[in-house]
Amino acid sequence: MTSPDETFFITPQDVERAFYEALEKGNLEAMMRVWSDEEQVVCVHPGGAALIGQRAVHEAWQQIFAHSGKFNLQVVQQTAVITPFAVITHVLEHFSQIGQEGLVAPVAATNIYTRGVLGWRMVGHHASPAPPDSLAEVPTVLH
Amino acid sequence: MTSPDETFFITPQDVERAFYEALEKGNLEAMMRVWSDEEQVVCVHPGGAALIGQRAVHEAWQQIFAHSGKFNLQVVQQTAVITPFAVITHVLEHFSQIGQEGLVAPVAATNIYTRGVLGWRMVGHHASPAPPDSLAEVPTVLH
Repeated sequence: MTSPDETFFITPQDVERAFYEALEKGNLEAMMRVWSDEEQVVCVHPGGAALIGQRAVHEAWQQIFAHSGKFNLQVVQQTAVITPFAVITHVLEHFSQIGQEGLVAPVAATNIYTRGVLGWRMVGHHASPAPPDSLAEVPTVLH
Repeated sequence: MTSPDETFFITPQDVERAFYEALEKGNLEAMMRVWSDEEQVVCVHPGGAALIGQRAVHEAWQQIFAHSGKFNLQVVQQTAVITPFAVITHVLEHFSQIGQEGLVAPVAATNIYTRGVLGWRMVGHHASPAPPDSLAEVPTVLH
């Protein structure tokens, strides 16, 4: 069982960690605890249209988790913009299929977190395919 | 000549308007006035790697403007997240080459603005190709 306490994220880093753990594990419930329940949330999957609002975001993750295989994920933060009520990170996501050699092309993602009465939550995730040579630009490993 | 006053943006909407005007006109100077001079700025062009820092952002726009033809641009805001010191918008950018019929596939963009001592500036722009049927989702025209 999940207690309500587990949905309180004290820092945006906590949200980011929980987001990528949920993504790697394909855990829909954990994924949706990461997201704000505001109507303005927006999620863009690589090559996809913008999904606006929690319901659309939820449905897309449900579909993705239903069809994706097991993979490992390494996330490298490239930059962050920090303000009192909103933090924006830009990361490179490196996916690798379990049981297959080599990394696939990375994904560039902008993640947006805001601070509300329930702590920090994700309000935006914009992901797009990045060139393979983006692999070289790896300052610090987050997860 | 440009007076320093012109670089003070009172609202994030002013920055967004100036950004898309500079983009449509291919005006590098106007484009770079839009951007914050913070080191954390990040710009992702469709299919590209993340450009971090004002110098990298400047060089990429210079290249783009040197090689792009004339086009019309229609920008449709899909959602916005508003906090006291940071505003994030998500828009669809519809480009059409002047002299050619029809719209090309739209671009999905997340734009990030922060408020500093010099008013509002852009600190992030993440653009990626969107599916052609994204054209249908058009609530309000911004520009």
